[in-house]
Amino acid sequence: MNNDKKSGIQLSCPMPQMDFPHIVLGHGSGGLLTNKLLDAGVLNLFQNEYLAQRHDGSILALNGKIALTTDSFVISPIFFPGGDIGELAVNGTVNDLAMCGAIPKYFALSLILEEGFSMEKLWQILLSIKEASEKAGALVVTGDTKVVDKGKGDKVFINTTGIGELHPKANISIQRVQPGDKIIVSGDVATHGIAVMSVREGLAFESTIESDTAALSGVVKKLLDQFGEEIHLLRDPTRGGVATVLNEIAQQSGTGIDIRENDLPINPQVEGACEILGLDPLYVANEGKFVAFVASSVAEAAIELVHNDANGKRAAIIGEVVESHPKQVVLTSKIGGRRVVNMLPGEQLPRIC
Amino acid sequence: MNNDKKSGIQLSCPMPQMDFPHIVLGHGSGGLLTNKLLDAGVLNLFQNEYLAQRHDGSILALNGKIALTTDSFVISPIFFPGGDIGELAVNGTVNDLAMCGAIPKYFALSLILEEGFSMEKLWQILLSIKEASEKAGALVVTGDTKVVDKGKGDKVFINTTGIGELHPKANISIQRVQPGDKIIVSGDVATHGIAVMSVREGLAFESTIESDTAALSGVVKKLLDQFGEEIHLLRDPTRGGVATVLNEIAQQSGTGIDIRENDLPINPQVEGACEILGLDPLYVANEGKFVAFVASSVAEAAIELVHNDANGKRAAIIGEVVESHPKQVVLTSKIGGRRVVNMLPGEQLPRIC
Repeated sequence: MNNDKKSGIQLSCPMPQMDFPHIVLGHGSGGLLTNKLLDAGVLNLFQNEYLAQRHDGSILALNGKIALTTDSFVISPIFFPGGDIGELAVNGTVNDLAMCGAIPKYFALSLILEEGFSMEKLWQILLSIKEASEKAGALVVTGDTKVVDKGKGDKVFINTTGIGELHPKANISIQRVQPGDKIIVSGDVATHGIAVMSVREGLAFESTIESDTAALSGVVKKLLDQFGEEIHLLRDPTRGGVATVLNEIAQQSGTGIDIRENDLPINPQVEGACEILGLDPLYVANEGKFVAFVASSVAEAAIELVHNDANGKRAAIIGEVVESHPKQVVLTSKIGGRRVVNMLPGEQLPRIC
Repeated sequence: MNNDKKSGIQLSCPMPQMDFPHIVLGHGSGGLLTNKLLDAGVLNLFQNEYLAQRHDGSILALNGKIALTTDSFVISPIFFPGGDIGELAVNGTVNDLAMCGAIPKYFALSLILEEGFSMEKLWQILLSIKEASEKAGALVVTGDTKVVDKGKGDKVFINTTGIGELHPKANISIQRVQPGDKIIVSGDVATHGIAVMSVREGLAFESTIESDTAALSGVVKKLLDQFGEEIHLLRDPTRGGVATVLNEIAQQSGTGIDIRENDLPINPQVEGACEILGLDPLYVANEGKFVAFVASSVAEAAIELVHNDANGKRAAIIGEVVESHPKQVVLTSKIGGRRVVNMLPGEQLPRIC
């Protein structure tokens, strides 16, 4: 990761000459300024045959089953340790596609800019979007820009809608969750939430806690290549964290879920920060982790495969699906006590993504 | 059109029981409140087999060429004469698909809500979205909700991303624009912009000027059914109006465009309002009109077809593509003078869509 870029000091690609150092309402007019903004670099930056059409939409050739997902990103601050809103917006949508068992192909990108927003910061975010989408092997094929008056937005909101092609071996659905399934978490939990929180609260740790924002499509593809239908369900524990995702799955599938606190991977610094902030890491957002429900017969081999991926080194089996206590998630604590883990009741960390 | 609904007095479908009369940050938490908001009515309102999956995305079966388009809507006020932000968001995306020659099939819907926004108004907007998407024959298949703190947004912003299936006879592209093409505008121009402006400025007219927001996919389908490849290009003159769209086309195609002010359809009240406000109707936004470039041989038959559609009664041939003055749009005024019409230079009416 390029730390210079992350700290906002250096652009990996110089910003083209712009008429204004800041966004003005006219950049959202659809007229000359919008066109200048596009011509000055945006279309060039993301150049591909689809954008070159400069139409209201893009024509794509797609066959078979595709996945469609949408997410708006309103994170604050827009630059945080380990990433920025642009990278997050791409990875978030890549991961939602991956959780459907799909390989990302195309993005639609929509920006809502606040009047006065720095053109340089916008450029930096666009560079992150480009870099992240290239890493994911997907193209930005259509887009939209709106500008709202100062005080009616907050710097930049990004919507990314993604289209992916379903992996031919994928058969992922809530109905496939069944007693005996092993539950894998792909790595340390709660990192993204604490990284953002530490900036907001001005907390300093021995070393900077960085967001885990990452594209999971690579490791998911490998899992599906090798284990196909034995991967029953995938979810990314973003807002609401692991506890909320597990509760949704328990409720929707009608099964019970047992997890063990001892097996939950967590970085000690993040754990310490959670204690200081009074947060339960089970509810803190992740942006580069998945929860997989897999057939017990392949669980060990699946964990080994995940361990060999850069985004899965700290993966662990944290529990299993059970017949008892349907629709409930029960945690065995470090000292052996058992308690029901509920869904996140209110709002823990607003605007985390 | 249900005027009661438009004025915000009556809901066409009662709002389900909600825990809060207003949006709170927790509704964007991804946890219990988000799930309650969905369960309390949203999923039920839009119910279909795709949403029922309650996954991070939806799996769709698509074959052949599809069109993808995205738009964020930040219009203020969110309720205006003739429509609201929900209806506009659907129609805008339907029309972008139609301009690609595609029939709308699926929507991804993403909401950015401001803390404190009225739950009842949200419900009203959701009802409009449902009604408009049903009219367009398309399904909302996936979605996202974010909440930003009070003062960091403005009531509600909506992103709609649409997928459509390309009409088998469509061959629409900027490269197909050629000298001799006739230019059709599907009806009175400048209506949407003036409808919104009149509310903002508190202007009163003899009768209320209503937005022209409408889905154009029906009339476009008929045009393509009948004239196929003879329809060379379609664009909807939204932000920046007819003048901006024609300039984009002249510049991208390298052709010249001649239009006649006398032939431009406009409602006399809208024309009067433009004079009062000092606006050139050629730059004022439309939300239910298209500009079509068609082979001269089918122009008269195409106009007749459009006239027979509810959204095309006032359609007119306003000009043609010429070999002279490449990349320029030239208007012959009512009194016979000729002047170059440029792209909208700055911002005329911010947040018009």
